[in-house]
Amino acid sequence: MNFCSECGSKVVEKIPAGDNRRRFVCDACDFIHYQNPRTVVGCLPVSGDKVLLCRRAIEPRLGYWTVPAGFMENGETMLEGALRETQEEAAATVKDETLYRLFDIPHINQVYVFFRGELDGDYGVGPESLESRLFSEDEIPWSELAFPIVTDILLEYFEDRKTGEFPIRVTKPGPQWAKDVGYFRKEEN
Amino acid sequence: MNFCSECGSKVVEKIPAGDNRRRFVCDACDFIHYQNPRTVVGCLPVSGDKVLLCRRAIEPRLGYWTVPAGFMENGETMLEGALRETQEEAAATVKDETLYRLFDIPHINQVYVFFRGELDGDYGVGPESLESRLFSEDEIPWSELAFPIVTDILLEYFEDRKTGEFPIRVTKPGPQWAKDVGYFRKEEN
Ligand SMILES: [Zn+2]
Ligand SMILES: [Zn+2]
Repeated sequence: MNFCSECGSKVVEKIPAGDNRRRFVCDACDFIHYQNPRTVVGCLPVSGDKVLLCRRAIEPRLGYWTVPAGFMENGETMLEGALRETQEEAAATVKDETLYRLFDIPHINQVYVFFRGELDGDYGVGPESLESRLFSEDEIPWSELAFPIVTDILLEYFEDRKTGEFPIRVTKPGPQWAKDVGYFRKEEN
Repeated sequence: MNFCSECGSKVVEKIPAGDNRRRFVCDACDFIHYQNPRTVVGCLPVSGDKVLLCRRAIEPRLGYWTVPAGFMENGETMLEGALRETQEEAAATVKDETLYRLFDIPHINQVYVFFRGELDGDYGVGPESLESRLFSEDEIPWSELAFPIVTDILLEYFEDRKTGEFPIRVTKPGPQWAKDVGYFRKEEN
């Protein structure tokens, strides 16, 4: 951030009076430009013993498989956003939606909120996807998943299915994705 | 938003190519200024059959009682933010924290994420509070609560205590607060 979005003056970075964090502040109009984490909302569509994944048509991680998700928009609820993304990315509707998984990704200032729901009818391919497909547990392309959160939510979902209990977890993403996709090995080459 | 925070040019409001929503766009540097909901994180501190509330020293709703909560900061997890706010507003530490309640407030572009936890030791009064106090169910000042979410989380908490089950709910705020504080009546006068 370089300029004040209110008055167009140059902003400076400093700790405002009564605060304890550095903010972008406009000395011309006194506006404090707070920056806060963004929320990504998504939904895991389930059909029988399978889950619906989409292969990404956009960067980052173009060509890799993911769960429908995207940035929450102003004016919508978390569930509305999750259902919108499911429609946009997988041309799919779900029913019996329920909250399932929250992730913290503090190093990129993001929060993820995932629901799960029963796939209701057909599915297709949205403009941000190359293809969509239902996968049973032994068909999941673990080394071709887009992000750590995708690995985590799928591992947990198939474990939870076995117990029939679906606790709502809140953690940072785990390390399994990096192992499965060979992320660290690739960085070292 | 009037000016581009990147280059200082005037922004225009339009639907970018490939999008379906109006955004603030800078035609000079092509930056799209997305605006997204902000997340408020908080914690309900519990001690025996009582909960810890704070009386607000700041607007809005100065003088009314609330649960410790505030905007999540970049670089922190939801729980870290909730514990930070509990410390800042009630000078309190909690233990055995667990996710408890999510709210959608789409008309003001906010999401709330509340934990609950056992009050651990003393509590006090932070700079944004006039006082802090433990309340049992029959002591809650229902007509002096600051926001609809405070009424909802307290009503639910004391009901949940009776069953021993604490389901994690996600809804918009309910209508009870407005009745309790006489919000609509006041507007009509
Ligand atoms: Zn300014
Ligand atoms: Zn610009």
